[in-house]
Amino acid sequence: AKPSALPFSSFRRIFRPAAEMLALPFLPFCALLAALALVCVASVSAWCQYWRGGFSWDGTARTFNWHPVLMVTGMVVLYGAAALVYRLPPAWSGAKLPWKLLHGALALLAFILAVLGLEAVFRFHKAQGIPDMYSLHSWVGLATILLFSCQWVAGFSAFLLPCAPAWLRAFYKPVHVFFGSAVLFLSVASCVSGINEKLFFSLKNGTMEYKLLPAEAVFANALGLLLVLFGVLVLGALAKPSWKRPDSDSPDARQVPALPFGA
Amino acid sequence: AKPSALPFSSFRRIFRPAAEMLALPFLPFCALLAALALVCVASVSAWCQYWRGGFSWDGTARTFNWHPVLMVTGMVVLYGAAALVYRLPPAWSGAKLPWKLLHGALALLAFILAVLGLEAVFRFHKAQGIPDMYSLHSWVGLATILLFSCQWVAGFSAFLLPCAPAWLRAFYKPVHVFFGSAVLFLSVASCVSGINEKLFFSLKNGTMEYKLLPAEAVFANALGLLLVLFGVLVLGALAKPSWKRPDSDSPDARQVPALPFGA
Repeated sequence: AKPSALPFSSFRRIFRPAAEMLALPFLPFCALLAALALVCVASVSAWCQYWRGGFSWDGTARTFNWHPVLMVTGMVVLYGAAALVYRLPPAWSGAKLPWKLLHGALALLAFILAVLGLEAVFRFHKAQGIPDMYSLHSWVGLATILLFSCQWVAGFSAFLLPCAPAWLRAFYKPVHVFFGSAVLFLSVASCVSGINEKLFFSLKNGTMEYKLLPAEAVFANALGLLLVLFGVLVLGALAKPSWKRPDSDSPDARQVPALPFGA
Repeated sequence: AKPSALPFSSFRRIFRPAAEMLALPFLPFCALLAALALVCVASVSAWCQYWRGGFSWDGTARTFNWHPVLMVTGMVVLYGAAALVYRLPPAWSGAKLPWKLLHGALALLAFILAVLGLEAVFRFHKAQGIPDMYSLHSWVGLATILLFSCQWVAGFSAFLLPCAPAWLRAFYKPVHVFFGSAVLFLSVASCVSGINEKLFFSLKNGTMEYKLLPAEAVFANALGLLLVLFGVLVLGALAKPSWKRPDSDSPDARQVPALPFGA
């Protein structure tokens, strides 16, 4: 045996489970991701319902409560689902159009929820006399939505309009994939800064100060960490070469079919 | 001509500059990135010096000011530089060891700055009687540093210790690359939430309220957007297949040499 074989046998034992996790097939990973997504949506709803007074559309803080729920559901969970559509093994063979329509429809639904989420916060601000768009959270969030809307319109024009020429599709595809990952990255950064900001606003007196870490703060901080985990897992899944749809219409197809962050 | 050729000629004109940008060689991109990094470090320093009273190590708010400067310099700029070392064309041929040492040294320097950045905030909290580690910003930030420290120790053990077996290196490499991108993602999310939080703390009376968007708020919000741009560009550069070092010691080498977010 080589002299290096023995001291690393424990390393081998440590890393073996990680290796098996990395070799996880896509569908069990998807089930795990769906469970995580469900926990995120349930948690953000429970936070707003149990600690923040529930939901309404009358301009009070209960109108604002739609904002985190719609943003997490739309810009993280549904957006992540839309991004992963082409990784489903049934999407690998046969006609591509139904999968394109599903991808576009999920993204459109995510976008509609995001617009309603924006409307909730603007309506709350207007009723309370609070200025819009001053915090870094709002700047990053608006940049995310603007990028996403350009992405959707350009994606629809290039990939769903039958008159779009093949050269345009081939050229635009890696750009679309790059900005697709970038938008998810911005979404998660927006969520983290938004939850942080909301907790400073809401928890500021007596025993309910954020810095005393009441149950609500622990709960919402944990939600923030779960959203980061969800984002990292989706971006990781998008980049995993063996989960990519074999494809020949991309200029990069010889190396790797669809390139998250790669152009 | 095909019927679709004419209506899309304007698209072609619009997308041509983007195509040329995507075909940008690595070194000019690096110069652009270095300029952006310089602007970020200068901006965070100018923010703390001009609006927040400068720097000290005596436990006052001026001690805190080291925190954003050290975190942006360490966890974003130096960390990004360390991540991109293997993309430099001179690193593609010849001995790999000097580049590994440079990668490890830059990452270690980033880590040291991050620890000093943590010490600055703990020292400030202790002197002012403020609890540590309660906000989501601090949770995401600490998760980033913990992941980074595991990443550095595991990277050093697997890639720099001569006794590490080849199978371990080959197995661990995609894991290291995946967590490398994940740490940068977490760093940027921490910076955005941290800048947002600091502005709410600092700008809260009279004409200096955050919501009135004084010059300081516009300046620091813009810094936040530049940090997001830097993070997206580095993650994009890491994922771009044609910028990856041709390599044969990874199990994924047949598809693509080094896989950001891919394992």
